[in-house]
Amino acid sequence: MSNRHSATLLISCPDSHGLVAAIANFLLTYNANILHADQHQDPVENLFLMRVQWDLNGFTLPMDSFAAAFAPIAEKHNMQWQVSLSVRKPRMAIFVSKYEHCLVDLLHRYSIGELDCDIPLIISNHEDCRRLAEFHGIPYHVIAVTKDNKAEAEAHQWALLEEADVDLIVLARYMQVLSQKFVERYPHRVINIHHSFLPAFDGAKPYHRAFARGVKLIGATSHYVTEILDDGPIIEQEVTRISHRDDVEDLIQKGRDLERIVLSRAVRWHLENRILAYNNKTVIFD
Amino acid sequence: MSNRHSATLLISCPDSHGLVAAIANFLLTYNANILHADQHQDPVENLFLMRVQWDLNGFTLPMDSFAAAFAPIAEKHNMQWQVSLSVRKPRMAIFVSKYEHCLVDLLHRYSIGELDCDIPLIISNHEDCRRLAEFHGIPYHVIAVTKDNKAEAEAHQWALLEEADVDLIVLARYMQVLSQKFVERYPHRVINIHHSFLPAFDGAKPYHRAFARGVKLIGATSHYVTEILDDGPIIEQEVTRISHRDDVEDLIQKGRDLERIVLSRAVRWHLENRILAYNNKTVIFD
Amino acid sequence: MSNRHSATLLISCPDSHGLVAAIANFLLTYNANILHADQHQDPVENLFLMRVQWDLNGFTLPMDSFAAAFAPIAEKHNMQWQVSLSVRKPRMAIFVSKYEHCLVDLLHRYSIGELDCDIPLIISNHEDCRRLAEFHGIPYHVIAVTKDNKAEAEAHQWALLEEADVDLIVLARYMQVLSQKFVERYPHRVINIHHSFLPAFDGAKPYHRAFARGVKLIGATSHYVTEILDDGPIIEQEVTRISHRDDVEDLIQKGRDLERIVLSRAVRWHLENRILAYNNKTVIFD
Amino acid sequence: MSNRHSATLLISCPDSHGLVAAIANFLLTYNANILHADQHQDPVENLFLMRVQWDLNGFTLPMDSFAAAFAPIAEKHNMQWQVSLSVRKPRMAIFVSKYEHCLVDLLHRYSIGELDCDIPLIISNHEDCRRLAEFHGIPYHVIAVTKDNKAEAEAHQWALLEEADVDLIVLARYMQVLSQKFVERYPHRVINIHHSFLPAFDGAKPYHRAFARGVKLIGATSHYVTEILDDGPIIEQEVTRISHRDDVEDLIQKGRDLERIVLSRAVRWHLENRILAYNNKTVIFD
Repeated sequence: MSNRHSATLLISCPDSHGLVAAIANFLLTYNANILHADQHQDPVENLFLMRVQWDLNGFTLPMDSFAAAFAPIAEKHNMQWQVSLSVRKPRMAIFVSKYEHCLVDLLHRYSIGELDCDIPLIISNHEDCRRLAEFHGIPYHVIAVTKDNKAEAEAHQWALLEEADVDLIVLARYMQVLSQKFVERYPHRVINIHHSFLPAFDGAKPYHRAFARGVKLIGATSHYVTEILDDGPIIEQEVTRISHRDDVEDLIQKGRDLERIVLSRAVRWHLENRILAYNNKTVIFD
Repeated sequence: MSNRHSATLLISCPDSHGLVAAIANFLLTYNANILHADQHQDPVENLFLMRVQWDLNGFTLPMDSFAAAFAPIAEKHNMQWQVSLSVRKPRMAIFVSKYEHCLVDLLHRYSIGELDCDIPLIISNHEDCRRLAEFHGIPYHVIAVTKDNKAEAEAHQWALLEEADVDLIVLARYMQVLSQKFVERYPHRVINIHHSFLPAFDGAKPYHRAFARGVKLIGATSHYVTEILDDGPIIEQEVTRISHRDDVEDLIQKGRDLERIVLSRAVRWHLENRILAYNNKTVIFD
Repeated sequence: MSNRHSATLLISCPDSHGLVAAIANFLLTYNANILHADQHQDPVENLFLMRVQWDLNGFTLPMDSFAAAFAPIAEKHNMQWQVSLSVRKPRMAIFVSKYEHCLVDLLHRYSIGELDCDIPLIISNHEDCRRLAEFHGIPYHVIAVTKDNKAEAEAHQWALLEEADVDLIVLARYMQVLSQKFVERYPHRVINIHHSFLPAFDGAKPYHRAFARGVKLIGATSHYVTEILDDGPIIEQEVTRISHRDDVEDLIQKGRDLERIVLSRAVRWHLENRILAYNNKTVIFD
Repeated sequence: MSNRHSATLLISCPDSHGLVAAIANFLLTYNANILHADQHQDPVENLFLMRVQWDLNGFTLPMDSFAAAFAPIAEKHNMQWQVSLSVRKPRMAIFVSKYEHCLVDLLHRYSIGELDCDIPLIISNHEDCRRLAEFHGIPYHVIAVTKDNKAEAEAHQWALLEEADVDLIVLARYMQVLSQKFVERYPHRVINIHHSFLPAFDGAKPYHRAFARGVKLIGATSHYVTEILDDGPIIEQEVTRISHRDDVEDLIQKGRDLERIVLSRAVRWHLENRILAYNNKTVIFD
């Protein structure tokens, strides 16, 4: 698949008769060879959601004419939609602080082609991960963040993000809370990893609190960042078993394995245009 | 959903352009309100597989005319297809020997509406489960099976199954191997539970062999029965962790929980027309 | 093991040198054949916790003299301890309301010997499960509970529990909150199943709230009941995966499988004297 | 714990009365502060197995006199035993071929102190991972292996391993089969990762065969290498769910996450002296 050019269309709109037929007929008109299609109806919200991916080889509509050609259908059915081309790799920035396990993992996956994107930059509030970034040949920018310089620091970050034309920001254990302004600037485009099974233990020191509560499983949660801390749409969660023999350090160690896997799945699904977020929840298309 | 009448169409055919459009247009012609649709392309086998379920309320094609109306499309695309109506509950026979944990589980799920079917009879080669069957008001037939009377016993079983107009046979830890003739009579209509993670430990005494090998997880597998023992298309599998502290009895006990869950999922998916078997594998539609 | 008479000793005390030697020497003095031993040190609380089970065959100390013989060691090390004899089956009461899936499961496990106890009675605030109780030959008492008669109803329950000499009370989806008086009467002797991954979604309607939050896994938690709702020491937890395709009814159905397994594990471990609760947490001895 | 000096004793011997007392009394004689103790009885083989770890701070027996002092007890009870000191870090060699995901993972865990060992060298039959090894400052030796030079190549490997005084060899997706001579030289000291749920799909191309069989879960297994391929004592296993939507490439990708976790757990447990292998099985002490 990876060496074929394809397009992926994500759609959400009010549910009604004839939606699948309308989309399928449109694609057939231009001889699309559909590679994958998945749809979902939410009967409570009366929503129709769809992801369809087709081979551009043999597709007779030039993609720069797609929007104009698709507009009548989109308008008729009141669709929100976006189309992505495999030829244009998403551009991803990674934010990190001192813990480097998620960064190591993301960069390794990137290096072996598991994450199909470009990574034009890494931003950190510490020097710690510079050597790792350089090993992978990725520019590493240190921007210290304090209570007093937050607005300024974010302005600096935005300048870098814009210059790099970034589509997605991944917080790989970045230990600073983004401002509301920052979050609004990148709606459903900032992915965070929280080291608990949300909504349990949101906020600070989740492993310590899990230990204190005596839970028998710990978890990790990847989610889109919204203005409320640890409250955005959940993308993926996973848990692992602990016992009374595990102290807080053991929880932290076992948790690292969860964090890596849960964050990397969210990033991959986002890069593959598999996620539709609505109502503070996510649909993950297969 | 359960109190609406719906129809479910399962299709498999060679993949080609325009299949989704053809099916969607057909359903739209008769004003179908699609409740769920899921499809899968197998690029290796060049197969298209689809499950679509729609509300019969407002559907303008009488279902006794469906086959005739759909035939041109089916023929054009060389489809294998079947349509099921929610109003017609599938009829399920359960075969059991002495272990009753799967039977208890299936009958409880049946009694609370989790398995949407009728159970006209239970067949066993032992008396042990009669009281349980009677508690649920289900006729219980004991047909002893020996080396010498197998053909005769199966003839007796077939007579009962045919009289009861059975669609699906569930082997709930039934400890007799069905003859090839039996299996051919009910292709992809006999579901078995095997108490191992197939293909490991097929055949006899899987828990004892898992113990002897020192595995760290044990499993259970539900599958369609084919003429080769424990080799049919796998429907569902699950595992659970064991340790050196577990002896064979512990494996058997932990395994019972797996068997119940893995068998009941397979049965439910079959009853909901979610399974398409081909190439000795299964597609499970969401 | 089950057909041998054995004794199980549970100990907790401040940690110090020589504890294992003291206990091992004591048991050796009377020729104990140790079947299982497991211990745990909590370095934060400086606690030593131990479970040891030995064969009574060949043990030269009569068990009615055990307390007197063990007292000097226990006093010296400031031990809390209890000894249980396999010959004396624990007596368990089950409380249930209308949902019978946990009850079906517990009674089946009881009937095949998986739960080594006597069940002298079932108490319910509804008639619904009477037929099931009678199938298993267990007395079924209906005691309606309203806002106005709660004290009276509990007094009635206590009378029945005392008459039946009950050691353990299992709330198998019993939909009434026990009074603080009730809880204090049976410290660490009432086990509840809560249908969420605590501490997430404590209180009412956890499946509805899990659905609304858009979690990707749902859970169940068994715990000892304390005066604070859903806050007692957690005994066991398990989760299962859900997706955007699952509505609240699907969550409830998938959750039933979790509830059964999580509750039955807690009950079995309690009956086998494997649980030590302290600091609102539990140690589960292997 | 890590900044305290401790000793760990692993024992296996025929089970008999008084073993725990004998060991506990011995340690108490020299004022040992026991940090962890775990034991296991195998009633089928009549074996007693124990791991005990104690603080060397305050322990009055110099460790170079330990063997002589413990010998009478060991002889009396026919014990096989070994003692390890935390002050002496185990020395681990890693063998790798071209896939570097396990190597990346092990080196990262090593770099953050999760694996408490020294890694004096990495041996490979390819150049591919040299840059990664150098990033971590570990000598990287390329020894090509062909059908014709195998004995010679292994002799070269042995020379390097002996010069580096290696205790443990980890095959991190090393794609060459070791000779019987090699295996006999390092009994229970070579850990391999096999990319299937053994005993299913032993040998070559397990992901391809798992795909062909249509299993619903794939697994990975870490084990000690013995003279029979993929047949040694299993240390750890884990599985993950796949579906009909996953092609072989997806299995390989999902499997990488399993391989990393399953191999790293085995390595950590070995380094922490938690594993006792006997009868082609393992006991993993908590």
